[in-house]
Amino acid sequence: MVKLRISWEEYRRRIAGVREVMAERGLDALLLTNGRSMFYLSHFTHMTTERPAILLVPPDGDLVFLGPLLEADHLKHQTDLVGEVRTYLDYPGDRHPIELFAEWLTDMGYGKAKLGADSPAGATGAMGYTGPPLSEKMPDAEFEKAGDIIWEMRLCKSEEEIALIRESAKWGNLAHQMLQEYTAPGLWDVEVSIMASLEASAIMKKALGPEYEPLKGGRSPASAGFRGQVGWKSAMPHSIGIGRVIQMGDVLVTGAGSDVGGYGSELERTMIVGEPTPKQERYFEVMARSQDAAIQALGPGVKCSEVDRASAKVIVEAGYEGLMRHHTGHGIGLEGHEPPWLDRGNDAELRPGMVVSIEPGIYELGFAGFRHSDTAVITEDGYELVTYYPRDIESLTI
Amino acid sequence: MVKLRISWEEYRRRIAGVREVMAERGLDALLLTNGRSMFYLSHFTHMTTERPAILLVPPDGDLVFLGPLLEADHLKHQTDLVGEVRTYLDYPGDRHPIELFAEWLTDMGYGKAKLGADSPAGATGAMGYTGPPLSEKMPDAEFEKAGDIIWEMRLCKSEEEIALIRESAKWGNLAHQMLQEYTAPGLWDVEVSIMASLEASAIMKKALGPEYEPLKGGRSPASAGFRGQVGWKSAMPHSIGIGRVIQMGDVLVTGAGSDVGGYGSELERTMIVGEPTPKQERYFEVMARSQDAAIQALGPGVKCSEVDRASAKVIVEAGYEGLMRHHTGHGIGLEGHEPPWLDRGNDAELRPGMVVSIEPGIYELGFAGFRHSDTAVITEDGYELVTYYPRDIESLTI
Repeated sequence: MVKLRISWEEYRRRIAGVREVMAERGLDALLLTNGRSMFYLSHFTHMTTERPAILLVPPDGDLVFLGPLLEADHLKHQTDLVGEVRTYLDYPGDRHPIELFAEWLTDMGYGKAKLGADSPAGATGAMGYTGPPLSEKMPDAEFEKAGDIIWEMRLCKSEEEIALIRESAKWGNLAHQMLQEYTAPGLWDVEVSIMASLEASAIMKKALGPEYEPLKGGRSPASAGFRGQVGWKSAMPHSIGIGRVIQMGDVLVTGAGSDVGGYGSELERTMIVGEPTPKQERYFEVMARSQDAAIQALGPGVKCSEVDRASAKVIVEAGYEGLMRHHTGHGIGLEGHEPPWLDRGNDAELRPGMVVSIEPGIYELGFAGFRHSDTAVITEDGYELVTYYPRDIESLTI
Repeated sequence: MVKLRISWEEYRRRIAGVREVMAERGLDALLLTNGRSMFYLSHFTHMTTERPAILLVPPDGDLVFLGPLLEADHLKHQTDLVGEVRTYLDYPGDRHPIELFAEWLTDMGYGKAKLGADSPAGATGAMGYTGPPLSEKMPDAEFEKAGDIIWEMRLCKSEEEIALIRESAKWGNLAHQMLQEYTAPGLWDVEVSIMASLEASAIMKKALGPEYEPLKGGRSPASAGFRGQVGWKSAMPHSIGIGRVIQMGDVLVTGAGSDVGGYGSELERTMIVGEPTPKQERYFEVMARSQDAAIQALGPGVKCSEVDRASAKVIVEAGYEGLMRHHTGHGIGLEGHEPPWLDRGNDAELRPGMVVSIEPGIYELGFAGFRHSDTAVITEDGYELVTYYPRDIESLTI
């Protein structure tokens, strides 16, 4: 049977790990407002909106949830790790949730405690939320920034996490294959994307069985698309749309992945519609060599900055330094981007279990952009590529 | 020709409006890190990631952008309202972007200025970002919270904004119609959702012509779906998935909308698969009366809390107070949720141009949930419903 989620044992190990750091820092509790951090410790998913919510890690016993009633309903179906739950009907309410949180935490004996928090505001502040900081409403408690405890733990993935990321890469690969098969001149890139995502998601569900459930909201369980990087807009990462259809001669930069147990992977390819021109071939070749150089540099103990320098060196030596628009890659797991950053400014060393995207690119404004992205796991003695879609220009010519 | 975006005249009026408030408050500049606020003033879209970015509103002249090179590339294609642009290659970089921002702002003469900011951090802090607050790196400048300037302006929509929201409702209606047509026992709700979103998006593009471009990333231009609210999970808003297919007897709670010029609308319906049971009919009827009561309460000068009380009264009198999970509605426009909150705790008055969702619901855990949502504009003498999909149980029985 395919493992589709993190085991309860692992969630318990994570909580124990957090408590070790809490003890070292003398924290009486850790307060989390970040939805992904809550999920990381409890398997509880909720939608982060204007409504404040806190997951509290006490020194022992069950976790505690303070938040809106509608999100709390999910707790009992999703996790056994949360005990006490206190809720309010909605925001802003007769009394502001932050005032309630302060009162409840004081009730629970934290009025004069030393509290680690990912946000002393007690809320993420999304969607036009306003309110007093929790720290202001608990003047006798001592607040200390402690969001790094979770981020530090998230840096190195466990075997279970890596297995989910590998499974994610499989369905991202399928979605990308369908994207490539459906791509043709005259089609709207958005339509091709949704078609490929629909078919890959449907097959993923049929293959994995009824137990499979997406855990991230707002997108296809498996997806592939162009995100606007079509033709001259391929030179602009983070585009959204382009006001025309796919044409002969276009360079396309893709992206694909899937959601398995809340984890993702990253697969991106440069595709060319029709016979590549010599200039397209040259840029493609430099990009591919730059990515190879980054991949070959990977390994435990290697500085993140060294990997970035290895890929940049290829681009600079080819004379394309001015066409660089970003660093080599980023961590990936619960979020699409997360630490560690494969950036010249990050001298931290790669460690076994880190999962990173490898995606140097070159972009000539008005012409085209060229970028592949693969997902790699750092191992004890090197690395493993989790994505495996063809990378050569022949395979990627439509 | 259909207007698909906000005019430059309106963007200029917005900037002038911001400057009036800046002058009243004695601010030398306004610094925005929120991506939607930047779009609201400039038509510039970018992806908010770990990379810090600031749009600066000076007392006169063009806007100023400080941020990552790859996002800045989009500026010249999207807006004429931004003049000076200073960029860094990537985060964290040889020097941290916040240090660069402090240096650049000091260069520009803001070293000792009074600066309004939506975040004194100078960054949104997403995706594991870490860095010193901008205010710490500019010790001689005075920072004042001023994100409310934009939120206050966003509360009341202009004619142009309302026109985009109306257009959005049209394609949300089409997507919902397709969702209803495709829904059947034995199908996976996610597949039905993506099918309806694909077809509606494709038709929307064909109808609106090549000029149409989505401006929000990460979703179908037009979309409809269930977001996990299928069967017993219909009782749990903000679900994601359910580990089974649609079955006879299921209550389904839907959601549909579309992206027109970055603006959205909200259409949600309760659908029933097969002949409704008496209990389903009773709950449906109370929910529909509660929504009617809220709609009839709408008008300029009415307190938001009164609208919430009007809908709650129906639910309470029916004996279902314990089945309430949230307030009556929220503002909508550039974001899915935004102020004003139609909540018992918000005594602010409705004003012409406000656009709100009207969506009281009742939810019995283990049984089902019942909620319609419609989008309403407050007018000079009442309200206009922007959404118009049938609301009666006969029309919504599959």
